Amino acid sequence: MTQLNQAAKDAKQASRQAAHLSHEQRCRALRSMARALIAHKDIILSANEVDLAIAKEAVAAGEMSEPLAARLKLTEQRLIELADGIKQIAAMDDPLGKVLMSSEPQPGIHLSKVTVPIGVLAVIFESRPDALPQITALAVKTGNALLLKGGREAAKSNRILFDVTQKAIEDVMPAHLIHLIESREAMGELLKMDDEIDLVIPRGSSELVRAIQQQTKIPVMGHAEGICHVYVDEHADPQMALNICLDAKTNYPAACNAVETILVHDHHHGPWLDQLCDELTTSNVSIYAGPNMALKKGFPPAPSLHWEYSDLAVTLELVPNLDHAIEHINTYGSGHTDTIVTESEDRAHEFLQKVDSASVFHNISTRFADGFRYGFGAEVGISTGRLHARGPVGLDGLVTYAYRAKGHGYLVGKKHKKIWPVRAASLMQLF
Amino acid sequence: MTQLNQAAKDAKQASRQAAHLSHEQRCRALRSMARALIAHKDIILSANEVDLAIAKEAVAAGEMSEPLAARLKLTEQRLIELADGIKQIAAMDDPLGKVLMSSEPQPGIHLSKVTVPIGVLAVIFESRPDALPQITALAVKTGNALLLKGGREAAKSNRILFDVTQKAIEDVMPAHLIHLIESREAMGELLKMDDEIDLVIPRGSSELVRAIQQQTKIPVMGHAEGICHVYVDEHADPQMALNICLDAKTNYPAACNAVETILVHDHHHGPWLDQLCDELTTSNVSIYAGPNMALKKGFPPAPSLHWEYSDLAVTLELVPNLDHAIEHINTYGSGHTDTIVTESEDRAHEFLQKVDSASVFHNISTRFADGFRYGFGAEVGISTGRLHARGPVGLDGLVTYAYRAKGHGYLVGKKHKKIWPVRAASLMQLF
Repeated sequence: MTQLNQAAKDAKQASRQAAHLSHEQRCRALRSMARALIAHKDIILSANEVDLAIAKEAVAAGEMSEPLAARLKLTEQRLIELADGIKQIAAMDDPLGKVLMSSEPQPGIHLSKVTVPIGVLAVIFESRPDALPQITALAVKTGNALLLKGGREAAKSNRILFDVTQKAIEDVMPAHLIHLIESREAMGELLKMDDEIDLVIPRGSSELVRAIQQQTKIPVMGHAEGICHVYVDEHADPQMALNICLDAKTNYPAACNAVETILVHDHHHGPWLDQLCDELTTSNVSIYAGPNMALKKGFPPAPSLHWEYSDLAVTLELVPNLDHAIEHINTYGSGHTDTIVTESEDRAHEFLQKVDSASVFHNISTRFADGFRYGFGAEVGISTGRLHARGPVGLDGLVTYAYRAKGHGYLVGKKHKKIWPVRAASLMQLF
Repeated sequence: MTQLNQAAKDAKQASRQAAHLSHEQRCRALRSMARALIAHKDIILSANEVDLAIAKEAVAAGEMSEPLAARLKLTEQRLIELADGIKQIAAMDDPLGKVLMSSEPQPGIHLSKVTVPIGVLAVIFESRPDALPQITALAVKTGNALLLKGGREAAKSNRILFDVTQKAIEDVMPAHLIHLIESREAMGELLKMDDEIDLVIPRGSSELVRAIQQQTKIPVMGHAEGICHVYVDEHADPQMALNICLDAKTNYPAACNAVETILVHDHHHGPWLDQLCDELTTSNVSIYAGPNMALKKGFPPAPSLHWEYSDLAVTLELVPNLDHAIEHINTYGSGHTDTIVTESEDRAHEFLQKVDSASVFHNISTRFADGFRYGFGAEVGISTGRLHARGPVGLDGLVTYAYRAKGHGYLVGKKHKKIWPVRAASLMQLF
């Protein structure tokens, strides 16, 4: 058995122990973690300085991108925010032991469906070392074991954050619940361990997510693509439509819930569309044209209708009606988040019913698709998979359930027969 | 694009159409299917005769096992039962459009989480042709598209059942919702289509399930193993314990929820254990001994503690206490179904909390783990996976959810600004 196998095996056992700690115990570990991040801020920030210095050299040598290096940086303020976030997770309701269903399917049998931890999660994250305490907090809250694999660009920061958080929870949580995987070769091995690992959660670029999905049979929770649409209907409020298009693109263009394609009903060809183009251009958004749009305007063609810019760029396309808009989204979208702007309740209803995405909105910016904005209190990620958890995922996405039933001797076949105590005679025959 | 790709693409689109048919429309299709099975019983049974004749030759030539051939057989009675089952599915509540959650996370935003079909299911089944109308009925009820891949031993029966059921639903359900895949080579291709197929459901032997799990990255709903345990605690009612052990093994030994290992507390070594062995032997159950048991009795050793007999055979093992029983089950079990027999509420509570299986029982035969017995009205299968659906799976396991939100121009970033109607001057600048 390899070291990693052993770690996963120990982690599974620790998760089973964590599952029946009380909520108060798990919350105590969380509050201790939050305090420790502040108490040890100096050593955390010094370790982070080392990573930053190495990253600076790597950027200078052209071996690391500037944004990747920038995401490494921790500050005292960031540690305070992290600690506050962990205290908020502690304050949330217990995700374990929730009774999802209870019934008496047969007289005298009490059946219940109760939430339990999933088991062993492998979380693979790039750059941002602040992901480590966040994910650890989610795991402690939900009783799951973790195999954490961070990027080597954050090696020192991850190590110290791991040591500090481990020390903080060790009095309460079972040993071996959280593992930091530091060897560079481990990733491939990790992704092959489909018997030991229950769920992989990648935190990073689309490329990372896609690479992981292609390499593993373990379920992956995440999204490789966020090709979101705004459809501006014939009956849209023109002012609202302009504002939603701008917000959905310019508020945070690299976010997965930023709009990538704006579909405009033919009706708006003319002053409204001109104004949209004008406002987008003023906001430094590059406009690319879909096939219908290309006939009418001089914008360069979109690279593809299935395209994620993740930047200040957008595809504009004209559609003749609602059906075409829905068809376009279901064909070229990524099932992440799509919105209609319309004053027609009928049109909105049809759009909400027929667009087959995880989040479908009416008169709301696509940027609303987010676990915190949905009121979940914590966000594990956004999933474009269709099973288990879909769309923004809160703590609920890190639990599964078990059926527990209590009875009084229930048999499926023939009824109880008197076979005890045995008669002396038959006992004698045995010997 | 291959034929199979095209079928999956058409199926996906059909599922999206099926998703917004009314429940009444889907039920009408189901009732029509139920009637058609009876109306066309003669041609169905004749086609079945052809398969049976071929199977008979294959058995004689030693190319097919007798039980496999036996499972092929349809009768008028079986068709009546199938039709009744389909009418029962029609009578159940609509699994689609259920509001799982609704909230107002921001003033004026109404967010709801609503059940929708999963999309495209590939169902791979062996022998039993009656699986075809059953699965078709589950798909029609839940608005899912199906790629059906039956075994070639039931080719004629499957074809006629497919034709009859398709004809019955075609007036209501979208075309291309259900596909019968008949080419022998298709299986490998099917299992590679992880972009097109959302879920694979194998219906057949453990070997089939295991082979499919090993070949695909598509989520698989099912169980390859059912290594279920009965733990007879120190404080068990001896009469109840004997009856539960016997029922769990002998009621249907090939079922996945039959017991494979009986763990007996050391306390019962003596007359009770002798009586258990006697009763098992009387019921033609072969007894194999675990390591602790082997020291005390003359039974042959169990092939492994992780062993599924699926037959009239069982492993007996002695354990010194509850902790050892729980540890044994979590180590050697398959997470399917395990039960404790005890009169102690404390022991029962600990067992229910700590055994990490999909179904955990107190004083109930393992054979109770079944969708119908759980009161689900229909059973898709039993899952030993930990994500999405676990344990006996009802119609709920064939749906996922989407978030739908309605607002009045919600933006994440800066508030609405007045950019419409545009002033004539700024419009002029555009041209």
